Amino acid sequence: MFRDTVERALAEDLGSGDLTTGYTVPPGAAGSAVIIAREEGIIAGLPLAELVFHTLDSSLQCAFAVREGERVRGGQIVMRVAGRLQPILTGERSALNFLQRLSGIATQTAAWVAEIDGYPAKLTDTRKTTPGLRLLEKYAVRMGGGYNHRLALDGGILIKENHIRAAGGITAAVAAVRSQAPFTLRVEVEVTTLGELAEALDAGADIIMLDNMDTETMRLAVAQAGGRALLEASGNMTLGRLREVAATGVHFISCGALTHSYRSLDLTLLVEQ
Amino acid sequence: MFRDTVERALAEDLGSGDLTTGYTVPPGAAGSAVIIAREEGIIAGLPLAELVFHTLDSSLQCAFAVREGERVRGGQIVMRVAGRLQPILTGERSALNFLQRLSGIATQTAAWVAEIDGYPAKLTDTRKTTPGLRLLEKYAVRMGGGYNHRLALDGGILIKENHIRAAGGITAAVAAVRSQAPFTLRVEVEVTTLGELAEALDAGADIIMLDNMDTETMRLAVAQAGGRALLEASGNMTLGRLREVAATGVHFISCGALTHSYRSLDLTLLVEQ
Amino acid sequence: MFRDTVERALAEDLGSGDLTTGYTVPPGAAGSAVIIAREEGIIAGLPLAELVFHTLDSSLQCAFAVREGERVRGGQIVMRVAGRLQPILTGERSALNFLQRLSGIATQTAAWVAEIDGYPAKLTDTRKTTPGLRLLEKYAVRMGGGYNHRLALDGGILIKENHIRAAGGITAAVAAVRSQAPFTLRVEVEVTTLGELAEALDAGADIIMLDNMDTETMRLAVAQAGGRALLEASGNMTLGRLREVAATGVHFISCGALTHSYRSLDLTLLVEQ
Amino acid sequence: MFRDTVERALAEDLGSGDLTTGYTVPPGAAGSAVIIAREEGIIAGLPLAELVFHTLDSSLQCAFAVREGERVRGGQIVMRVAGRLQPILTGERSALNFLQRLSGIATQTAAWVAEIDGYPAKLTDTRKTTPGLRLLEKYAVRMGGGYNHRLALDGGILIKENHIRAAGGITAAVAAVRSQAPFTLRVEVEVTTLGELAEALDAGADIIMLDNMDTETMRLAVAQAGGRALLEASGNMTLGRLREVAATGVHFISCGALTHSYRSLDLTLLVEQ
Amino acid sequence: MFRDTVERALAEDLGSGDLTTGYTVPPGAAGSAVIIAREEGIIAGLPLAELVFHTLDSSLQCAFAVREGERVRGGQIVMRVAGRLQPILTGERSALNFLQRLSGIATQTAAWVAEIDGYPAKLTDTRKTTPGLRLLEKYAVRMGGGYNHRLALDGGILIKENHIRAAGGITAAVAAVRSQAPFTLRVEVEVTTLGELAEALDAGADIIMLDNMDTETMRLAVAQAGGRALLEASGNMTLGRLREVAATGVHFISCGALTHSYRSLDLTLLVEQ
Amino acid sequence: MFRDTVERALAEDLGSGDLTTGYTVPPGAAGSAVIIAREEGIIAGLPLAELVFHTLDSSLQCAFAVREGERVRGGQIVMRVAGRLQPILTGERSALNFLQRLSGIATQTAAWVAEIDGYPAKLTDTRKTTPGLRLLEKYAVRMGGGYNHRLALDGGILIKENHIRAAGGITAAVAAVRSQAPFTLRVEVEVTTLGELAEALDAGADIIMLDNMDTETMRLAVAQAGGRALLEASGNMTLGRLREVAATGVHFISCGALTHSYRSLDLTLLVEQ
Repeated sequence: MFRDTVERALAEDLGSGDLTTGYTVPPGAAGSAVIIAREEGIIAGLPLAELVFHTLDSSLQCAFAVREGERVRGGQIVMRVAGRLQPILTGERSALNFLQRLSGIATQTAAWVAEIDGYPAKLTDTRKTTPGLRLLEKYAVRMGGGYNHRLALDGGILIKENHIRAAGGITAAVAAVRSQAPFTLRVEVEVTTLGELAEALDAGADIIMLDNMDTETMRLAVAQAGGRALLEASGNMTLGRLREVAATGVHFISCGALTHSYRSLDLTLLVEQ
Repeated sequence: MFRDTVERALAEDLGSGDLTTGYTVPPGAAGSAVIIAREEGIIAGLPLAELVFHTLDSSLQCAFAVREGERVRGGQIVMRVAGRLQPILTGERSALNFLQRLSGIATQTAAWVAEIDGYPAKLTDTRKTTPGLRLLEKYAVRMGGGYNHRLALDGGILIKENHIRAAGGITAAVAAVRSQAPFTLRVEVEVTTLGELAEALDAGADIIMLDNMDTETMRLAVAQAGGRALLEASGNMTLGRLREVAATGVHFISCGALTHSYRSLDLTLLVEQ
Repeated sequence: MFRDTVERALAEDLGSGDLTTGYTVPPGAAGSAVIIAREEGIIAGLPLAELVFHTLDSSLQCAFAVREGERVRGGQIVMRVAGRLQPILTGERSALNFLQRLSGIATQTAAWVAEIDGYPAKLTDTRKTTPGLRLLEKYAVRMGGGYNHRLALDGGILIKENHIRAAGGITAAVAAVRSQAPFTLRVEVEVTTLGELAEALDAGADIIMLDNMDTETMRLAVAQAGGRALLEASGNMTLGRLREVAATGVHFISCGALTHSYRSLDLTLLVEQ
Repeated sequence: MFRDTVERALAEDLGSGDLTTGYTVPPGAAGSAVIIAREEGIIAGLPLAELVFHTLDSSLQCAFAVREGERVRGGQIVMRVAGRLQPILTGERSALNFLQRLSGIATQTAAWVAEIDGYPAKLTDTRKTTPGLRLLEKYAVRMGGGYNHRLALDGGILIKENHIRAAGGITAAVAAVRSQAPFTLRVEVEVTTLGELAEALDAGADIIMLDNMDTETMRLAVAQAGGRALLEASGNMTLGRLREVAATGVHFISCGALTHSYRSLDLTLLVEQ
Repeated sequence: MFRDTVERALAEDLGSGDLTTGYTVPPGAAGSAVIIAREEGIIAGLPLAELVFHTLDSSLQCAFAVREGERVRGGQIVMRVAGRLQPILTGERSALNFLQRLSGIATQTAAWVAEIDGYPAKLTDTRKTTPGLRLLEKYAVRMGGGYNHRLALDGGILIKENHIRAAGGITAAVAAVRSQAPFTLRVEVEVTTLGELAEALDAGADIIMLDNMDTETMRLAVAQAGGRALLEASGNMTLGRLREVAATGVHFISCGALTHSYRSLDLTLLVEQ
Repeated sequence: MFRDTVERALAEDLGSGDLTTGYTVPPGAAGSAVIIAREEGIIAGLPLAELVFHTLDSSLQCAFAVREGERVRGGQIVMRVAGRLQPILTGERSALNFLQRLSGIATQTAAWVAEIDGYPAKLTDTRKTTPGLRLLEKYAVRMGGGYNHRLALDGGILIKENHIRAAGGITAAVAAVRSQAPFTLRVEVEVTTLGELAEALDAGADIIMLDNMDTETMRLAVAQAGGRALLEASGNMTLGRLREVAATGVHFISCGALTHSYRSLDLTLLVEQ
C-alpha cells in the first residue's frame, strides 16, 4: 500500500540514478550498515525503511533491533541492513527521510500523551498532515500513543461553520446528511457556543466539536451534554494547556501540531567496516 | 510539473469524496474566501494553493495579495479565492497544508540567512527533505533567501566516506568519477581532516565538503585551500554557531534542519459573508 | 474523479484507435445524435456519457433532455450530442456502456424501493459491485431511491463472524475496534442469533446486522434491541420477501443483487440526418 | 496483464485499508478458506481470484478444485486458499466480485450455446461489455463455449450505417478502408436489406452483418451470398429465437446480452475451522 | 492518444526542470520561432511538435506552413510557434526529436515507394519499430506513402515457423486459430517453400508470407496461388532489389528497415529577432 | 528503473495479447532460443532483452554469451533464453527491438571513437535522442566508448544564444545562473566567435561550447582559452572531419548523429530444435 509512496520518493531522489555510487562502488561489493539513534525518542517507520531498501534490491537483509513504537536512547541501534553496498548507499537518504520524520511525530505525540496521563480524554490528530504522507503520519501518531481523527473526507461527517451556514442551520445540516450519507459514518458538528451545542444535541449529532472554547466553557459544555454525544475539544491546543482541557471531561482533544510542526528525530546510517 | 503532487494530495484527502460538503452545500452556491496569516512570516507556495483550487474547479478565481517570498505580518490577507463554494471548501485543507509548510520553511530559512548577513557564505539546503516534496521544499528555501545544494542524486557528484573507501581512496574515487560522469557536473568530495583536504585538492575536486569540523579547523582549511576549490561547511549547524562558521570564509554552509525540522506557518481560510 | 475510469474505458475500446471511423468519416464532418430509451426505466449516468464525449473532443455539445434519476418511457430522448461526427461515433459504445448499466441498476433499485413504500426501512446496497465501478454503481443505487452501505473497507467498521472468532468473541472484538479505529466511524456487528444480539448490544455496537434470520426472528430482534442500536437485515433478500422484512421494523435492508445481477437498460444512439 | 485491473479493484475496496480486519485479526493468525458454489453453473475467473489473493500476500497458497469452464453443482468447492488470515479476509469480497461475475457470464453463455447445438453457427459476443472489464468478460464468453467478435475498435473493420452514409455508400466505404487499413484485418459491412447485401458482396466485404433482419430475410440472404462472404446475424436476439436463426445457415450470431445483462453466479467464501 | 508519449518525453528531458532557461529568460518574455528544414525531405509529425509546445504552455500559437506528408526543400519553413519564450526554448529539443525522426522515416519510405511506382504491390512496414513509438512510426510510414502491416500482436494472426512446429503443421495451426481467434482478423501463414505454400493455400490462409524467397521462386508462388490468397514478400529487402520483387506480382512487400534504420531529417528551430 | 520502459514496449506490442502464440503454442511447451548476430558489431542492451523476457515470465532463464560492449562477429551467439516457449515467442520482437537499436548505437559510436584514437578529446552524445529512450541510448553510447553530455535539462547549465540574448549578454547570463543554480552543476556557455569566447572566459564559464566553428578558428580558441575552461566542439561533425577537430586540442567533441541517425544491428532469434 505504501509501495507507490516509496517508489516516488526514490524516483525523486535518484532522477537518472545515483551517479556517484555507480562510479565508485563496485556492483559486487557487499557489507552491512546500522541505523543508529543520536538522541532519545520513539521509533516509527522501520517497515518503510525496509521497503526503501527492498525496492532497490529485494535481496537486502533487514533486521530490526527495536519494535515500532519503542523508546530508544541516544546511541542505540534501531536496525541493520546487509547485502550489496550499492543499494544500501543509494537508499540511505530516503530510508532516513521516512524514518526520521515518522519517529519525530511519534516522539512529539508521546510527550503530549504523557501530559494527560490519568485522564480518560484521548489525544487525536487532524487532517493537517503533509501532502502525500497522510496515512503514514497518522500511523506515527498511533505509535506515539495518540488516536486518529478521520483519515480522509470520506471517513466521517464533520459539519463545520461554513456547511451549517450553507445548509441553513445545524438542524437542517444534520438532517441533510442523515438522509444521504452512508449510515456507517458518525455525524460530527462543530459548535462555538453553548447555544449551538444545545441545537447540535437536539439534532442528534453523534459527536460535537467544541471549537476554540475556553476551558471554563468546555466544562459547562460537558455538563450540558450529559453523555448524549461524544465531545471533542479543538483549537489552540498547547502543551501547557492540555492538562486542564483533559480535566474538563471531554472525550477527545485534537491537535494539528502533532503532524504540522515537529522536529525530525536525529538518526544516522553507519556502514560497518 | 506539480500537477501530480497536487492531484495525489487531493486524492488522499478526498478518498471517495468530500461527503459533508456534498450533502450540505448546494452545487450552485458561490462566494469567496481569503487566506489570512495568523502570525508573521515569509509566504511561499501560493501557486500550489491556486493549483489545488484549479484542480478541483478550473473556473475558480484566485488573486494573490502578496508576492512569493514576501514577508507578511499577522492578520494580513495573502490570497483570495472566489467562485463555487463546494470546491473552495473541499480544497481548503489541501491548499493550506501546502502553503503552511512551504511558508514555514521559507520563514525559518530567512531567519538563518539573516544570521550570516554580511558574509559571502551562502546558506544551502540538503537532501533531507520530505519524501515526495523535494522540489517544493527546495523552492521554499530559495524563497527564504537560501541556496540549493544538488536537487537529486543525478544533479551533482558527491563522494562521501563510504564511496572513498569502496573506490580505494580519494584520488582513485575522483579519477573513477571523472572518467564516467557527464562532464557537466561538478565533483565534490567530503573530507574530515586537513590531510584528506590536501588529497582532495590534489585530486582536482571542484568542491570540498568540510564535514563536522570545528570552527578553528575550518579556518585552517580555508587557508590551505587557497581558492583552489569551493568549500562547503556541513554537519551540526545550529543557529547559534552559524555566524562564526560564516566568518571562516567557507563558500557554502549546508543545513538539513531547514527542511527536516520546522514549524508550519499559521494560516487560515475564512469564507467571506 | 471519474476521469480515469472514462479514459480507461476508452483506451480499452479504442486500442490503437477507431480505425473504421478514421477511414470513412471525414475529420471535418459534423452532425448531431440523440440517445433514446427503447424501454421504460430510470436514467442514471448522463454525466458519464458526457464525459466520454468530452474526453474525445472537448468541443462536443451535450444537452440532457432528462434529469438524473428521472423515469423515462420507451422512445423518449434522454440526451443529444452535437459537433464533429468522428468523436460521436467513436464514443458511442463507451457512452452507452456506462449509461445502460447505471440506468439498469437505478431501474431495478427503484422497483425494490417501491416494494417497501410506506415503511421506514431503507433499502441499501452492499460491496458486491463491479470491480472498478464501485462509486458509480452506488451512485446509481441512490438515483433509484436506495441508500448506500459503506463505500469501502475504510468507510465503516463491520465486524463479521470471522473477525469475532479471531478476536475471541463479540465483546473483545468491539473493544479492540473502539481502542484503535478513527472515532468518526460507527461500529457494526454481524449476528445470527438472539443470543449474539444481546452480546452485541451490551458491547455497545452502533449497528447490528441480522444475518440470514427468518422474518419471525427478526421481529423478536427488533423488540429485544429496543432502539439501543440500528438494525440491518441482510442475506437472501428477494423482491417477494422484501415487504415482510420491512414490516419487522428493521432500519435497513441490504441487498447485493442491486449491483451484482441486473439487466442493462435498452438505450441506443441515433445520428440525426 | 490483469494485474492493474486487480490492483485497482483492491484500491477501490480498501481505500485507506481494511480497518476491521486490521483491528480484530492478529497479523500472524493463519488458516484456510474455501470458495463454494451455492448453485449450479460454469466457473470462470479462478486465476483472477488467485491474483487478488496473491496481490495482497504473495505467500498465500491457492488450489483450484475445478478447471476453468467446468460446470459445478450447488455445494461444490471450487478453490481453496490457505495462509495468513488477514489477506484472505481482506481479499474475500474482491475475489468473489470477479469470480461471480465471470462465472455468471460463462453460465449464461453456455445456456445460449446449448440452444444452437447441432448447427454450424457460432454464438459471439459484442463490444457491449462492462467498462474496464472487456477482455475478462470476453474470456468468460469463451469459457462458456461462445466466440469473440472483435476485441476493440482496432481489432477489425466494421462499417456501420453512419460510416456508409459519411463515406458516400457501401462501395466507397469499402474502398476507403481497403486503401488505408492494415491488411491483416477483415472488412465487415452492416446491411439491413438484400439490396445492400448485394452491394456489400460486390464491394468485396469479407464479412456482412445482417442487422435486425427477420428470419425469413436472413434465409434469403444466406442463399444470395452463396458463400462469397461470412454472414453475421445481429440484433434483437432472444434465447427463444436463437435456434431458428441458426437454422438459416448464418455463420455467426452475435448477442449483446451475453455481457450486458446477466446474473452473478452465487458463490461464497467459508473460513475452515 | 499521444499525450502520454509527449508528457514522458518532456519529463525525461526536463527532470527537475529546464534550469538554464528558468534562470536566464524572464517568464514574461515573448517572441516567435520557426522550424526550418535544412535538407529536402517529407515532413511528418507536426501535430506532435505542436503537442509538445501545448503541453508546456497551452497558450502558445502554432501555425503549420506545410501539410503532413508534404515534400519540403532545404531552407523551407515548416512551422512557426509564437508566445512566451520560456516554453518555446524548453520544448525545442523534444519537438525536434519527434519531428526529425518521423520526417526521416517518411522521407526514406517515400524513396522506397517511388522505386516500385507503377506496380500494384504495396510497400508495408513491420513490427520492427522503436519501443514506445510504434503508432507514430507507422503513421510516418503512411505519410511517406507506405502501408501498415498489423499494428500489434492482437491486430492480425501471423503464423510463423515456430507456431507451425508447435501446433503440428500448417493445417493444424490454421485450424487451431480459426476455432479461437476473433473472426474479424485475417489469418496469415509464413512459408519458405512452394510445398508449404500449397499446404497453406489448402488450409485456407487469407494471406501467405513468402519468407526470404528468391525472386524466381516468388514468381512461381504467385502463379501457384492463382489469387486464392494475398501474398506478402518478406525478408532481405534492399532498395536495389525492390523493383524486381514488385514485378513478380506479390500484393505486399514488407520491409523492417523503414523503421529500424533511418536518418533523422535535418531540421532546426530559430528564434525570430 | 527501465521496468516501465519495458512494460510499455510490451503493452504496445501485445495490445490485447499475442493471439497467434496463444492459439498455436501449448502453454506448457518448453524449449530454448538463441539470439545471434548476423553482422559484426558492438553488443549493448542484453539486460533489456532479459528484462523483456522476465517481465513476461520471471521463470525464463537467460544466459549471456558476450559482455555488454563486446564486439561480436556475424554468426556469433549473444544470448540464450530457455523455458516456456509462449513468452519466448511473445517477447522475441520487443527484445530484439531494444537490442538491435542499442547495439546499432554502440557500433556506430565505436567507429567514431576509433577515428580519434590517440587524441585526448572525448566523443560525447547530445540530447538528440529518441523520445522515451534517453538514458538507454546514452548508455549505448558509453558501451561504444563514447562519453555523455548532460543527461537532461537539469543535469547541467548550458547557456545558448537565445538565453544570452534574453539575459542581456554572456556576462549577465552567467551571473544570473551563478546566483540561482544548484552549485553542484558546471556552467557551460555556447559561443560562435573568439570575441564571445573571451567574454565567456572572463565571465567564469566552466565549459565553453565552440559552436559550428571551422577547424582553424577552433585551434585559435584552444590557444586563447589557455586551459581556463573546458572546450567542447559542436556542430556539423562528420566522420571525415573528426580527426582534425580532435587535433585542435578541444576537450570534447559532441555529435548528435550518434543517437539520431543509425542503423539497427542485424540480430535474430532462433528457437533451438
